[in-house]
Amino acid sequence: MGWQIDTAQIEDLARGAAVFGTGGGGDPYIGSLLARQALSGGPVPVLDLAEVPDDAHVLFVAMMGAPTVMVEKLPSLDEVVEPVRALGSHLGRPVTHIACAEVGGVNSTIPVAAAAALGLPLVDADGMGRAFPELQMVLPTLLGVTASPLALSDEKGNIAVLQTVDNTWTERIARVATVEMGCSTMIAGFSMTGAQARAGLVGGSLSRCITVGRAIAEARAAKTDPVEAAVRELAGRELFDGKVVDVQRATTTGFARGRARIESEGGTALTLQFQNEHLVAEADGRILATTPDLIMVVEGESGEPITTEALRYGQRVRVLAAPADERWHSAEALAMVGPGYFGYDMPAHRFDGTVSHGAGSSGAEPAHEASRERIEAR
Amino acid sequence: MGWQIDTAQIEDLARGAAVFGTGGGGDPYIGSLLARQALSGGPVPVLDLAEVPDDAHVLFVAMMGAPTVMVEKLPSLDEVVEPVRALGSHLGRPVTHIACAEVGGVNSTIPVAAAAALGLPLVDADGMGRAFPELQMVLPTLLGVTASPLALSDEKGNIAVLQTVDNTWTERIARVATVEMGCSTMIAGFSMTGAQARAGLVGGSLSRCITVGRAIAEARAAKTDPVEAAVRELAGRELFDGKVVDVQRATTTGFARGRARIESEGGTALTLQFQNEHLVAEADGRILATTPDLIMVVEGESGEPITTEALRYGQRVRVLAAPADERWHSAEALAMVGPGYFGYDMPAHRFDGTVSHGAGSSGAEPAHEASRERIEAR
Repeated sequence: MGWQIDTAQIEDLARGAAVFGTGGGGDPYIGSLLARQALSGGPVPVLDLAEVPDDAHVLFVAMMGAPTVMVEKLPSLDEVVEPVRALGSHLGRPVTHIACAEVGGVNSTIPVAAAAALGLPLVDADGMGRAFPELQMVLPTLLGVTASPLALSDEKGNIAVLQTVDNTWTERIARVATVEMGCSTMIAGFSMTGAQARAGLVGGSLSRCITVGRAIAEARAAKTDPVEAAVRELAGRELFDGKVVDVQRATTTGFARGRARIESEGGTALTLQFQNEHLVAEADGRILATTPDLIMVVEGESGEPITTEALRYGQRVRVLAAPADERWHSAEALAMVGPGYFGYDMPAHRFDGTVSHGAGSSGAEPAHEASRERIEAR
Repeated sequence: MGWQIDTAQIEDLARGAAVFGTGGGGDPYIGSLLARQALSGGPVPVLDLAEVPDDAHVLFVAMMGAPTVMVEKLPSLDEVVEPVRALGSHLGRPVTHIACAEVGGVNSTIPVAAAAALGLPLVDADGMGRAFPELQMVLPTLLGVTASPLALSDEKGNIAVLQTVDNTWTERIARVATVEMGCSTMIAGFSMTGAQARAGLVGGSLSRCITVGRAIAEARAAKTDPVEAAVRELAGRELFDGKVVDVQRATTTGFARGRARIESEGGTALTLQFQNEHLVAEADGRILATTPDLIMVVEGESGEPITTEALRYGQRVRVLAAPADERWHSAEALAMVGPGYFGYDMPAHRFDGTVSHGAGSSGAEPAHEASRERIEAR
């Protein structure tokens, strides 16, 4: 059933979204500020995925770019609505609903701000059920929904509308344009009918963010363990408890790439590899979890999620894992978001440490090769 | 008075355009092939600039990218008309006339092909009266004509429509998109009324190309000096006669940059510096000519123009200079295309070796600084 989102829920939404963001999606504080500002005029209606009518015109609204840059370049409400307006005018038919491309940091709260500013309802859903670093990495891509026409805009007033041959080309062109436009842009795209949205999106994402964010807050208030509360709501497990002893990070071609090493009091060590999001967790040579399952780092005591750009030497952290939407474990999906795509030479491991079924299929190999070439070419 | 262009004129047009291309604009042979193919259905009407009606909708059509890449990636007629169609549909009003953004190599013949394929008349004019490496470097920019909306397309079928805050931003975003799209794209933009075209363009460019190209061919047939014939038609002068002894060249960020050293039999040397086009000619520490005036290299005997990417060790060449359209010598224009913009620390020298009046004005300095920053940032 439909509900409303107002300023009172933004804090829980932002915290939960930062958990689901698996280290990526940018500082949720920025998106929260923007959403609070946009909601000051009143709440935004939120529809369950099942309630979206067939003839709806649903768009993703998101911020594209390196989270490390977003922290320094605050977007305005004008900037958030600009690509939606540009796309609506390009398509010649009005947009009726806004949805999140991903849950994670700013990209859970920016769409709330966009919906409020445009006076449109939100859909309680997203394209991933988590966050991923590239634009084509949403479940609708697997159903043939095209990212383009896609509009992107910057804070200076530059706008580009892309019409590409596939969603990977939308990513490639939008990415270089975003880097040139100052390393972050606002985007709108993946024009969907209601039927396509219902078939392709992960339902209940915003509610789930709020539930997880609230569970952490309530556990803190009740002096119980907020991390345990989060793990319970995520139906996940705790992988590791330790101290950050090393973080290597570089912002290249619009992504924040790196690795972090965490040591336990017992002397064991966990290594995290990330590209905006945490993608691989390994302990003493054993792979504990990989993309597409969710790998999350939270502050050890408070359960506050920590983004990859906020990871620092000396932090006491706990590393959690949770299952991805099951559709991410098909061979076709793993070819798009499995470890091989990101250049890690390993099959996908589920959050319980078992190897993902789809990973062994022939579908994963070409993507691995393509990714290698792609990385070397950059 | 209006005339017609047919396949019989293409060879002279292409040769003359390669002269005016001052080393840039790509291999004219490619554009000729395309123009011949498009003109096989009949000639294209060409209007003098004065004949273009006020309510005309004139567009530039051009190829963007590194000439060294264009040689290997032949465009098709479909590709040439695609950005015009995309832009016409974006603007919601039909394009009535096609014009050249520059005279030079493919960019004099590609618009002929586009006009023929679209069934539209050509304007006997261009935006520069020569060739320059960046998109904003046309005289209409100085009159406030916006490059955007600008459409670009590649051979794969990807299209981008840009709407930017100024013409330099159109260049920046189109350039990175072009590099990502394979280092060459077809573009259409600079939507102009007939009145804007008449005020901003250089008239008679296509006729002048044909005249120069024909003068070279006729001198060859008459066993007289084709280079002298070209110099006469260009109202220019011969700067140097010698042998190419060194060429350094690199294709970076979508441009072919480099320098060439030419030695005379008497032992004197001329150095040419180029960025797609020849920009500076220096002999024994003395500057003989710089952008915006035209610096051209032709084969010593035949007068055949040589593009910067075709310059080779051992070639016997003659270096010519000719005056640019006088509007390029204003302070505002020199800030956009003078030596300082390209990072050469010198005032603009006219083709007779005197310093350009506008260069000493305050307008040139900020561009010089901006260029420095721009070059260092890349």
